[in-house]
Amino acid sequence: MKLPPGVSQQDFAAAVKDFRDVVGAEWVFDSEEDVNLYRDAYTPFWQEEEELVASAAVAPDTVEQVQEIVRIANRRRLPIYPISTGRNLGYGGSAPTLSGSVVLDLKRMNRVLEVDERNASILVEPGVSYFEAYKHLQAAGSKLWLDVPDPGWGSLIGNAMDRGGGYTMPMYRNHFEAHCGMEVVLANGETMRTGMGAMPGCKSWQQYKTGFGPSVDGLFSQSNFGICTKMGFWLMPQPEAYLSATVSVPKYNDLIPLIDTLNFLENSAITNGMPFLGAPLTNPGLMPGDEVRRPPAAELMELLATPGGPSDAQLEKLARDKGMGMWACRLQYYGPPEVIRAQWAYSRKKFEAIPGATFSEPELLEMPLTPEQIAKVHKVVFGVPNLDIFFIGARSETVPQPSDGHIWFSPIIPRTGEEVLRAQRVINQAAVELGLPGVPFPAVGTYWIRSFMFLYGFPIIKDVATNKKNRESFRKLITIAAENGWGEYRTAPAYQGDIMATYSFNNHALLRFHETLKDAVDPNGIISPGRYGIWPKHLREGRRKP
Amino acid sequence: MKLPPGVSQQDFAAAVKDFRDVVGAEWVFDSEEDVNLYRDAYTPFWQEEEELVASAAVAPDTVEQVQEIVRIANRRRLPIYPISTGRNLGYGGSAPTLSGSVVLDLKRMNRVLEVDERNASILVEPGVSYFEAYKHLQAAGSKLWLDVPDPGWGSLIGNAMDRGGGYTMPMYRNHFEAHCGMEVVLANGETMRTGMGAMPGCKSWQQYKTGFGPSVDGLFSQSNFGICTKMGFWLMPQPEAYLSATVSVPKYNDLIPLIDTLNFLENSAITNGMPFLGAPLTNPGLMPGDEVRRPPAAELMELLATPGGPSDAQLEKLARDKGMGMWACRLQYYGPPEVIRAQWAYSRKKFEAIPGATFSEPELLEMPLTPEQIAKVHKVVFGVPNLDIFFIGARSETVPQPSDGHIWFSPIIPRTGEEVLRAQRVINQAAVELGLPGVPFPAVGTYWIRSFMFLYGFPIIKDVATNKKNRESFRKLITIAAENGWGEYRTAPAYQGDIMATYSFNNHALLRFHETLKDAVDPNGIISPGRYGIWPKHLREGRRKP
Repeated sequence: MKLPPGVSQQDFAAAVKDFRDVVGAEWVFDSEEDVNLYRDAYTPFWQEEEELVASAAVAPDTVEQVQEIVRIANRRRLPIYPISTGRNLGYGGSAPTLSGSVVLDLKRMNRVLEVDERNASILVEPGVSYFEAYKHLQAAGSKLWLDVPDPGWGSLIGNAMDRGGGYTMPMYRNHFEAHCGMEVVLANGETMRTGMGAMPGCKSWQQYKTGFGPSVDGLFSQSNFGICTKMGFWLMPQPEAYLSATVSVPKYNDLIPLIDTLNFLENSAITNGMPFLGAPLTNPGLMPGDEVRRPPAAELMELLATPGGPSDAQLEKLARDKGMGMWACRLQYYGPPEVIRAQWAYSRKKFEAIPGATFSEPELLEMPLTPEQIAKVHKVVFGVPNLDIFFIGARSETVPQPSDGHIWFSPIIPRTGEEVLRAQRVINQAAVELGLPGVPFPAVGTYWIRSFMFLYGFPIIKDVATNKKNRESFRKLITIAAENGWGEYRTAPAYQGDIMATYSFNNHALLRFHETLKDAVDPNGIISPGRYGIWPKHLREGRRKP
Repeated sequence: MKLPPGVSQQDFAAAVKDFRDVVGAEWVFDSEEDVNLYRDAYTPFWQEEEELVASAAVAPDTVEQVQEIVRIANRRRLPIYPISTGRNLGYGGSAPTLSGSVVLDLKRMNRVLEVDERNASILVEPGVSYFEAYKHLQAAGSKLWLDVPDPGWGSLIGNAMDRGGGYTMPMYRNHFEAHCGMEVVLANGETMRTGMGAMPGCKSWQQYKTGFGPSVDGLFSQSNFGICTKMGFWLMPQPEAYLSATVSVPKYNDLIPLIDTLNFLENSAITNGMPFLGAPLTNPGLMPGDEVRRPPAAELMELLATPGGPSDAQLEKLARDKGMGMWACRLQYYGPPEVIRAQWAYSRKKFEAIPGATFSEPELLEMPLTPEQIAKVHKVVFGVPNLDIFFIGARSETVPQPSDGHIWFSPIIPRTGEEVLRAQRVINQAAVELGLPGVPFPAVGTYWIRSFMFLYGFPIIKDVATNKKNRESFRKLITIAAENGWGEYRTAPAYQGDIMATYSFNNHALLRFHETLKDAVDPNGIISPGRYGIWPKHLREGRRKP
């Protein structure tokens, strides 16, 4: 068992005993087999000394128990690492940022506290998963939709606090922005409510975000300043219908007007579902009727294997030969049939300005979907939680040798065609030079309005030498991206310090500000030391990356 | 001249001398006539000892000068009070929260630093007013719209930092939420950039809000934790057209389904302009063709004067007799003509479920408006800055005895008809009992989605006795509102402490958290002491309201 630095075996044992008094012996886990369950299944340190592992875990059932646990941790200077459901695979899972921390597992706090059907909101505890929230809404006959991320087993609060995203309308698919009001247990063991929740008896806690005075909610996302125990979210009224249609463009450089037009449509709220964007040659599912698991064509693989890579013209020709666009954007619309048909017709008109643009027939589905329909559709687009995403990387005809996991390298890039193409060239070249799989086409994350994310899934293999090499490569990619002005929006604990270090304006003024706040609100540094690169004073030396 | 508490005449004089060295003598103001210009024209303490007044003002031209000023203030423990253009009349104007503070006037920093036409954003300094930003965009031939608040002479940054709002689409009309990235001078004199701006050379500073790690931007709104010197905003692409139409409903209790339907439409993004909501009997301009300055009918005044007030049935009858609805909602839509026509048609269909609902013919205007059209329309709705709002309260046929100013009492209330009607009854009764003008009809602020604001304009009269009485009344209204769960979203400095005190969950945990942060980031307490109820340690005693 790994103890956290500076905590004696005696203090640790005393804390564990105190935890048992608070939550009951059955909810404190310190046997090796139990603690192993909190390891990150996608750790880049598999079988290595540096693997981030917990010393124990404690699972409270109430806010009061969380408060007690925090007070005990303070007395023993014992680091605790709160997780909601611990499911953010690819971004760290349930393992702590500092080995030896006690995982504070909030999965038992899984109550849906309130659903306001008329004002379309929900108030939940951290252990509530998307599956559970969905079941709750369905059972109540609610006409409200959740916006769900790819795997539905995660926590609404956990996903929001890590600033994850989903697939429906912009005002719902940025999960942190869609929250309204939180309750936090601070490092001193006190509870605090933000926004209108700070006013006793206030009924607009889930209706007005910022309350009165400074708005502190953002502080608790991607950080270690407190433990969220309740959070409200705005939900989307079930739309009458859904429409999807695809625009395809023939030329390599058509990506530029394609994105400019998309930006105009999203910034004008004329298209309101998440757009899917990419090269149909390599990105299946963009065209209607296309197989989601279609492997890349043999001719494409051949072209990509040519020394120096294919020319734009060669790629354009191949796409044309295959009856595909060089680039395609699948648009989605939620709303009344007559409105979304008009929105698509207008969008189409705008895209027609690109010479050679072609369009699929729009597909319109009326809501609610039948169970048979749900079984067939891309469920996240309809707010239905699921685990379908795990087919990616699973052993299949197209993926004969799956990896054991992945870590996302996901920098934010400006939302222009020029920059997407430049990012593809730079990251592809870096990847190839580092001996990693190349990125012949950009994988563009379109979750947010106004910016893109460049998504590169780093394979995790159960092989120490490969992982060591990959870790170095990951760090090199971080540096290369930063040199180009592309910064990650989120990362796994192994790299949080490295990435925070690239946000270095004025000698790391932002990190130093975070540290000032951390020292003020958590003087003993007990909550999630090191998370997002923020170390408490007594652990900062030697760990801070800059 | 009023010196701030604890600052000697000598230290003050030395600081002023140092300020002169930094910005030049002509930009430091300490004569009585100059300093008087920073008094709040709408102060509730007119001619009283308690009036909040500055000791001097200093107007830097660059970020470096701001940093120097902050360092000088730290050396002398001199409170400074940053203002952008100081125009938030009704919410405090340019006067400091602590008398004797030096106003840090940022009006000279009025550069538009960047306009990104393709990604629809603007980066500005604090002195840039809506007028100036508009002029800049127009001169550049930009197709981007600003979202503007009522008076256009205010600062984009100042309005956002005080969390003001405008009139266009929801993603633009909440001015703080529409910001993306800021630069702040901290109390230690260092500059910090938030979001992607923390990464040197990053080109997505105005494209992705939260960057990496904790999101700290909210901390700087309605507070005193730093001085914003740059801020980005998302702009709205000029729509092809604008449509407005009114739904009217006949019964008093129809307000309930009217609001429920409106909520559904706004939460579904089917209507995307700010709705105007009220009783046409007393709220002119809700019906097409109605005179914006129409005085209430004599019959209404008569009814309102009846002991005990009119019954619902009497009001309904009067409205019917006048050919008006009891309640009306004027909806607004921005977008392509065919889309907004479809959106209105669908909205109308939804409202038709309310028995007796009637509808105006929709009015559609194509953009851009001609100068002649602009002269006639409600300009803020079209993103055109102006000062038309000042006709309210000005001497006119309908207002023979104007006040000398006003202060807004503006609690957030839940977005249901029941609660709007309850707020009207409770606040009306309280106002009448306090000898204030009654509120026979609710004045509903519809700036935000998901919640309403109840707007009560408190008259400011140049009469000490009246103002004394009104101040007591204002405080009583705050208490009465809080007892009903309604908390203000913003207020003038005179009442900030009182209101912060009503956000008291868990023995004022939120305020104590703010104070912990304040002490950490501004240990000498030099920035805007007392703003939004947050006092630095050395001034806290006796001033903290709880």
